[in-house]
Amino acid sequence: MKKNIALFAAASTLFLNSAVTVAAPTAAKATTVAELRDKALQSDAVAYDIVEGLTTEIGQRQAGTEAEARARVWSVNKLKALGFENVRVEEYQMPTWVRGAETAEIIAPFPQKLAVAALGNSGSTGEAGLDAEIVYFPTIEDLRAAPDGSLRGKIAFVSHNMKATQDGSSYGAFGPARFVGPNIAAKKGAAAIVIRSVGTDYHRNPHTGNTNFEPGVTPIPAAALSIPDAENLQRMIARGKPVRIKLKLTPRNIGMQTSGNVLAEVKGSDPSLPIIVIACHLDSWDLGTGAIDDAAGCGIIGAAAKHLQSMGQPKRTVRLLWAGAEEVGIWGGRDYGEKHANEPHALAMESDFGAGKVWAVDFRLPESANALRAQIVSALAPLGVVPRRELAGGGADIGAIIAAQKLGIVDLQQDGTKYFDLHHTPDDTLDKIDKAELRQNVAAWVAALGYLANYEGELKPELAQ
Amino acid sequence: MKKNIALFAAASTLFLNSAVTVAAPTAAKATTVAELRDKALQSDAVAYDIVEGLTTEIGQRQAGTEAEARARVWSVNKLKALGFENVRVEEYQMPTWVRGAETAEIIAPFPQKLAVAALGNSGSTGEAGLDAEIVYFPTIEDLRAAPDGSLRGKIAFVSHNMKATQDGSSYGAFGPARFVGPNIAAKKGAAAIVIRSVGTDYHRNPHTGNTNFEPGVTPIPAAALSIPDAENLQRMIARGKPVRIKLKLTPRNIGMQTSGNVLAEVKGSDPSLPIIVIACHLDSWDLGTGAIDDAAGCGIIGAAAKHLQSMGQPKRTVRLLWAGAEEVGIWGGRDYGEKHANEPHALAMESDFGAGKVWAVDFRLPESANALRAQIVSALAPLGVVPRRELAGGGADIGAIIAAQKLGIVDLQQDGTKYFDLHHTPDDTLDKIDKAELRQNVAAWVAALGYLANYEGELKPELAQ
Repeated sequence: MKKNIALFAAASTLFLNSAVTVAAPTAAKATTVAELRDKALQSDAVAYDIVEGLTTEIGQRQAGTEAEARARVWSVNKLKALGFENVRVEEYQMPTWVRGAETAEIIAPFPQKLAVAALGNSGSTGEAGLDAEIVYFPTIEDLRAAPDGSLRGKIAFVSHNMKATQDGSSYGAFGPARFVGPNIAAKKGAAAIVIRSVGTDYHRNPHTGNTNFEPGVTPIPAAALSIPDAENLQRMIARGKPVRIKLKLTPRNIGMQTSGNVLAEVKGSDPSLPIIVIACHLDSWDLGTGAIDDAAGCGIIGAAAKHLQSMGQPKRTVRLLWAGAEEVGIWGGRDYGEKHANEPHALAMESDFGAGKVWAVDFRLPESANALRAQIVSALAPLGVVPRRELAGGGADIGAIIAAQKLGIVDLQQDGTKYFDLHHTPDDTLDKIDKAELRQNVAAWVAALGYLANYEGELKPELAQ
Repeated sequence: MKKNIALFAAASTLFLNSAVTVAAPTAAKATTVAELRDKALQSDAVAYDIVEGLTTEIGQRQAGTEAEARARVWSVNKLKALGFENVRVEEYQMPTWVRGAETAEIIAPFPQKLAVAALGNSGSTGEAGLDAEIVYFPTIEDLRAAPDGSLRGKIAFVSHNMKATQDGSSYGAFGPARFVGPNIAAKKGAAAIVIRSVGTDYHRNPHTGNTNFEPGVTPIPAAALSIPDAENLQRMIARGKPVRIKLKLTPRNIGMQTSGNVLAEVKGSDPSLPIIVIACHLDSWDLGTGAIDDAAGCGIIGAAAKHLQSMGQPKRTVRLLWAGAEEVGIWGGRDYGEKHANEPHALAMESDFGAGKVWAVDFRLPESANALRAQIVSALAPLGVVPRRELAGGGADIGAIIAAQKLGIVDLQQDGTKYFDLHHTPDDTLDKIDKAELRQNVAAWVAALGYLANYEGELKPELAQ
């Protein structure tokens, strides 16, 4: 953190002088980057076209299913049509879970139906369903504190008070209700678990998403209630009478299936320079059409790479990674990390937080790249993007290759205030895309990539000094 | 209309002098009305309690079902507990349609599921479902223009461009896609019809609601797509290839069932004065919990009548009508009109447009009541309510009694800008109630009822002069 603050101070100083620096371009084509950035702000053609196409012509594209396979074919055609090079699919196998029927209803004391969706890796209740009493836990900590065996034959209900945050950090704070709640409940003997959806909206659309059971723990039926339903259930519980629900979930594990990454490139002029990889993920959850999660990311990086092409050949190769199977365990990102572990990379970036405006930029670069950093900060400033003291962390799909090669990272942080209104719900559809914000994203990526792809110096932070 | 404008001019003149008029109360207890109004603004106890109770302890209360019967029991208990008199149920029989399974999916060219809900009175596809090509009509007028027989074996898809309006008038303009679209499509030989939901939101929640087939026309399967799904379907159609969908709807007609109205009274001191009836409806559609449609109305009139009681006994009896079976054909309102046709009524009011703020007041009163009208206008002004030139029209549940006895009417017009985001959807839940706006509604009702219930003059407009 200390080092990070020092870096920030250095960059700030440079930033104050950046008008001069940028006005007199050095290694990177400063004028061209600014022009390209401003051009990106004017048109959403490529980015919106990708989001519109994937959501309309494919729709949901759950990992390991035939829909994801259709999405790969679609993506190869699209990326070729856009003029990228080395467009290809790299396949891998992965275990696949698919949704079945899902219903939930209050049996007593106040009979009514609840809007529910199984969590990824949920067990099945069987066709007959499960009729059991609810045991209420206001937070995941309350569930953790429940005595072992106390939930035998019961359905645990875990709530929380997630609120929207600009940086999405509340997902980390409240997500464990989904990530580990079912495993905890299973170990304490619960027959099943329902959670308040990990989300910030008030619609009857449950938020699905993966949960994981430890080896040796038998998966129990695990589902999310929509937030209005969870609050209704809490009001019933507050009346003091035992609440029984009937839950039916019939998901299945269908074994190993094929998934894959789609790759494409803007070839650089100097093959001796390690490449830059930019990522999104192609798979989506199955309830919506995956517009913000993550067709938007693929649209943003696809459009940015296309703009970069129009600048003339960059020095470094920029590779697009439209990863498969992110939602269900980052299978695509791991496969990329393994298959490309020995291919020299310099830096990685990812877009996987919707289509909200970029408001901040974080870096993980060597100190030797401070002038580059200042150029990027300066090019982002007209878009309302501020540099932060945070160290860039990258994203899920680039995690493996970053870890393998200790890469440089630039994070263009999107405003996620509304992201968890839609995340993993049926409501993740094209109409949620704000075209002006989408364009601003592309412009920000152009501003960063325009400099990064033409920078010949070291980009990996551990080689600094 | 001319008469109405003249009335408005007279009222406006009086309104300008109303500060004086109200400061020196005449027949009605002006000071008390103002105090009561301001007290109503401070507490949402009764109104919110009713909405919270109905949505939590009953939930959906579709007409003719056991859920509506439970709602009547709940209401009788609640109205008695609030201290009203003559609390009772008046039952009637009505034909009842209930929802079955419902799914829709694109078969070709872009396979994906659609969010769909059957319309009330829809026919059934049978368990096997129906697989047919879509014929697209941008508006109901385009459907009307289709040649007879041109839809044989096809599924009509009717869209529209409904936009939100403050007064809800767009429901009249765009509602026919649902009200009569299925009947038109059936007569032209369509196998089924799907419509863009008659609504103004962008959530994956279809808007249900009744449709009606003419005698002799066999009901076809008829369903609403959520607005994101309807727009997705339009984008597919725009690509120019035939679009096939598989539709499964298995609703059933379960014959004549019992429904009923719940009545309660604030008894007036002068039994020779014709009564005032104030209405909401107790039934709801089955997808949501009927918070804004229309538990809110029952909460508003219940709370207003309770405040009126606390003013001391009014001169006229004020009767609460919590009507049954409004959604499926105004069975409760008609039953009330028939059973009470010979009981002298003076005036009717209704609350059935959600819980949005009251922004305008319309009247249908004799000219002899202009001073009363001015008092009400003056009492509503501090709530931000403006008098309009529109002639009050009443509401569905009071339509029959108004027609039978040519009653006076006061309409407290609510802001309906957001109403059709939620109307008849799963999203009509308690969390959509804004407590401050609910209180303002109660205060407006208190302001009107406080004067009306203590007014001894003529209230029926046709007896004016």
